[in-house]
Amino acid sequence: MTDEAIKARIETGRQFMARWSQPGDETFESDQQKKLPQPPLVKAPMRETSIELPKNFEDLKLNNDILSVINNRKSSRVYTQEQMSLLELSYLLWTTQGVKDIRGRSYATIRTVPCGGARHEFECYMLIQNVEGLEDGSYHYLPMEHKIEMLNTKAELETTHGMTFRDLISATLNGQIWGAKGNIVFYYSMVAYRAEWRYGIRAHRTALIDAGHVTENLYIACSSANIGTCAIGAVNSALCDQIFELDGVEEFAFYAATCGMISEANAQAEKDFYAFVKRDNL
Amino acid sequence: MTDEAIKARIETGRQFMARWSQPGDETFESDQQKKLPQPPLVKAPMRETSIELPKNFEDLKLNNDILSVINNRKSSRVYTQEQMSLLELSYLLWTTQGVKDIRGRSYATIRTVPCGGARHEFECYMLIQNVEGLEDGSYHYLPMEHKIEMLNTKAELETTHGMTFRDLISATLNGQIWGAKGNIVFYYSMVAYRAEWRYGIRAHRTALIDAGHVTENLYIACSSANIGTCAIGAVNSALCDQIFELDGVEEFAFYAATCGMISEANAQAEKDFYAFVKRDNL
Repeated sequence: MTDEAIKARIETGRQFMARWSQPGDETFESDQQKKLPQPPLVKAPMRETSIELPKNFEDLKLNNDILSVINNRKSSRVYTQEQMSLLELSYLLWTTQGVKDIRGRSYATIRTVPCGGARHEFECYMLIQNVEGLEDGSYHYLPMEHKIEMLNTKAELETTHGMTFRDLISATLNGQIWGAKGNIVFYYSMVAYRAEWRYGIRAHRTALIDAGHVTENLYIACSSANIGTCAIGAVNSALCDQIFELDGVEEFAFYAATCGMISEANAQAEKDFYAFVKRDNL
Repeated sequence: MTDEAIKARIETGRQFMARWSQPGDETFESDQQKKLPQPPLVKAPMRETSIELPKNFEDLKLNNDILSVINNRKSSRVYTQEQMSLLELSYLLWTTQGVKDIRGRSYATIRTVPCGGARHEFECYMLIQNVEGLEDGSYHYLPMEHKIEMLNTKAELETTHGMTFRDLISATLNGQIWGAKGNIVFYYSMVAYRAEWRYGIRAHRTALIDAGHVTENLYIACSSANIGTCAIGAVNSALCDQIFELDGVEEFAFYAATCGMISEANAQAEKDFYAFVKRDNL
């Protein structure tokens, strides 16, 4: 890229980020203000069958010292490849996208995470390996029922994409192979009109912030449950859209987070991810 | 705005959000890759004197049931206008921007919140009313020392901007007057090159997500300490830049969150914020 092209992109990025309102936006009227019909609160199930998730979270061994949960939060990239329990997966889904209540007849879902205008414009998909009682493969979270549905088996995905499951996971993360050694990668998609109905031209700036709300709760939940996680912005959206059957326009994947079991024994391997700091004398 | 202009803006927003990498970005090289010098990890103090913050967080009455902290997280917009303690303010600053460690000689701050590439590209400013031991006015957080510095007194701000302190706070939030009744509004600025050095054209998408990490920790900390908060995307950046002496180009305010003491007695007043749902039969 030329320096000029970079400069122009950076300028656009700064403008996009800085301005809730740009000059001329005063006359913008959202579809909600125009009283146009509201889109559905969640995506309809994509398959006929679904899987119940346990909610006996009191049986998890959680760190209940809130300050140490916050202080111990960190990114973990080295996973033991031990099995994750279904209850642990359920806890992570509940704390990041769980629906606590419905506002109005069908106006908004009230969830464990905050979201601009309570639009909750995300869907959550997963690539899962070695989770108790689940076949390896691709899944979709059904927040209204706190269930998941299997989309495709590992074998089906390997055939369709012509590579191993691990290589496929790694490819969705733009080649970050460590991400393929965890138990789950969560992929978040934007269902664009669900937020645009209310926020229109401002929906996407708001939604990116909302995505951070979601993954920070994931970090906090993982910290409390001694699970490793790392949020990842460098997602291959086009490949994720293919895997999860998204059209890439009205709904597109844009953000991910890996999760896996961790051990103190891997502390040095975790540190090795930052070896460049010493090497480059930073 | 014309329908066409809206459509174009929405298309731009979707593209900005969806794509970690756009076609042609493969050749992008960041200033970090080019081995250009790294910008400072934090902004230098803006004044000569600063105020120590207490760190005896064990003296706070915190809810230490992590699941109920997460489940009880909510947005609160009705504040009792009681005094907030300095320790409570300190806790909120620590949990949202506190520096736990330095990586390398001066490569990165490791903080209580995650941030893309550990760039921690934000500065935190405050408009404060009725916090123990502090004069009302504008403040800046110094994360390296966990201190704050007063920028201007309430009287100075009222003279400069020709309006009452409360009207000024409300104006920064695009007229959301309830926001002026809390004890603190936190304003987050982007120090653009701190992230652009590493991420360049991708810095702003990443930074918006990072902002959500910060405010979700604020929600969690407030939930644990029975303090009310509400994150606000609709910020008048230009006014905030003026108040906090930011140039609006290299550093600009873009996001805020109100905080104040709360009471169960205001439950109905909180519900009244959603009266439109019933009125509009949503």
